[in-house]
Amino acid sequence: MKLINFTVTGHTRAGAIVDNKVVDLNYAYQAQLKAEGKYRYEAIAKAYVPDNTDELYQGGKESLILAQNAIDFILANPESFGKKVIYNREEVKVEAPVVRPGKIICVGHNYREHILEMGREIPSNPVIFAKFANTILGPEDDIPHFPISDQLDYEAEFTFVVGKQARNVAEEDALDYVAGYTITNDVTYRDIQRRTLQWLQGKTVDGSAPMGPYLVTSDELQNPSGLDVVLKVNGEVRQKTNTANLVFSVQKLVAFLSNLMTLEPGDVVLTGTPGGVGVAMNPPQFLNDGDVVRIEIDQIGALENKVKATEAVVTV
Amino acid sequence: MKLINFTVTGHTRAGAIVDNKVVDLNYAYQAQLKAEGKYRYEAIAKAYVPDNTDELYQGGKESLILAQNAIDFILANPESFGKKVIYNREEVKVEAPVVRPGKIICVGHNYREHILEMGREIPSNPVIFAKFANTILGPEDDIPHFPISDQLDYEAEFTFVVGKQARNVAEEDALDYVAGYTITNDVTYRDIQRRTLQWLQGKTVDGSAPMGPYLVTSDELQNPSGLDVVLKVNGEVRQKTNTANLVFSVQKLVAFLSNLMTLEPGDVVLTGTPGGVGVAMNPPQFLNDGDVVRIEIDQIGALENKVKATEAVVTV
Repeated sequence: MKLINFTVTGHTRAGAIVDNKVVDLNYAYQAQLKAEGKYRYEAIAKAYVPDNTDELYQGGKESLILAQNAIDFILANPESFGKKVIYNREEVKVEAPVVRPGKIICVGHNYREHILEMGREIPSNPVIFAKFANTILGPEDDIPHFPISDQLDYEAEFTFVVGKQARNVAEEDALDYVAGYTITNDVTYRDIQRRTLQWLQGKTVDGSAPMGPYLVTSDELQNPSGLDVVLKVNGEVRQKTNTANLVFSVQKLVAFLSNLMTLEPGDVVLTGTPGGVGVAMNPPQFLNDGDVVRIEIDQIGALENKVKATEAVVTV
Repeated sequence: MKLINFTVTGHTRAGAIVDNKVVDLNYAYQAQLKAEGKYRYEAIAKAYVPDNTDELYQGGKESLILAQNAIDFILANPESFGKKVIYNREEVKVEAPVVRPGKIICVGHNYREHILEMGREIPSNPVIFAKFANTILGPEDDIPHFPISDQLDYEAEFTFVVGKQARNVAEEDALDYVAGYTITNDVTYRDIQRRTLQWLQGKTVDGSAPMGPYLVTSDELQNPSGLDVVLKVNGEVRQKTNTANLVFSVQKLVAFLSNLMTLEPGDVVLTGTPGGVGVAMNPPQFLNDGDVVRIEIDQIGALENKVKATEAVVTV
């Protein structure tokens, strides 16, 4: 499945993209249960195929299988339910495939060429840092550029979402704990990142993690290695690598991270960025109002967002 | 108020400590509403004085005032409701005053003497880093020491919780955005913290943020400066400072952080630790099974937790 959240008439709900359609997963399952004669179809659907992805991931593989079956049902019986279940893609706004993850864990220095570009050594342990959920944007949102720095930069990141609670998981079992894969732009205010020892402040500015265009579930994308990653700014290729070049693979990261902490369904891991970030160009090239950043990853698709100069938001 | 969550008969609910009693805030407000003849007392209480602190903070000052009034009502009318509202303190387990905050932001290098002890310069901007919500423990929990490092260390941290959504807040308005103050032990696996450039991995191990013994609301603790902070290990004083020595005050931190990101009600900020951490002693002194770490802060109280050697938890 290609999982998303989507907004229509002000409601945001979990969905799947099927060809050029968007299927409301919770309503699709309600429709199926009702057709099966389940009087409590609404409560059962809420339990097993909830209406937002964060709760859906908590249901693990069981919920993803039920969601897929519900899609098959509703496509075969499109008129079987009183509520609208299937939309044309252009009727809805596609949102990020997570809503409010408890953790966004980012890996630094994880592509050999980026490590060399930054003048650093291949680390023996992953470098990890955080973003908070205030950073998440969807694939149809603009990237806000707040007037706090002129050094807005991009980072293409192959991303996975945890699908099952994980603690001390072995590498060989690791992929069983992955719900699926998506793309994130780890937008970074580069000077703010670098003004202290810890990067967090340049990494967790509001709206600095556009994500999408959807999550490809791990039953469809079975091998996270060997995927080409390309980032373009206004059509010009800036970053280019392959996930085979990751120093710490998805499997190693699940094992490493789950040795330190309990990973929960819906937690997001950005696996690191390759060489070619704006600050490392000669001369450095930062993002400006109107720039379009597009990240393409094999078997996932493309995440494209426009940069928009934004006045500081003020609490009233 | 002294806000907590508490667990009794398997239920965890928001409460306040009053003398040696614990008052269930949601039930106290239900009792009051019912006595006022409100037929929908349960729904109204859920909206305004919810049964967990994270949602309670979302209600801002309005909800805190209603909670205080409900306490006054139930203490004057203790037998007015069908459910148990007031407990003796020893009947319940006291939990941390937050459940699952969206952000735990930690400030590094924020006491002058600690900066000097670490051989560093006074920074011109706060150093900030993250912990995730998997770290939170209550004041009656043991600190787990997982067998991943021998260098378990303590850090006494004066802590505030955000009480109102904040973006670009000025220093002079900052305290209006603080729900209250508590104590956190920023438990750190020191060698893991230091094995890469970024500290996160040594900071966000499960159970590494014991917090409590309660949150003192900011109507009671109006000036966060001038509070003595003392940390003892097995009765021996190891850290001792005063919040007047903070390089970046609570007001400055609210302004600084809200300039970067939207702070949400329930977000937690650990303001930094003073000199005297175990790793800086000569020779270094780390925590061991059975050690008792006690942190006392003026006008708040004492947070005391025992260290417990813990086998690695394994996902099944």
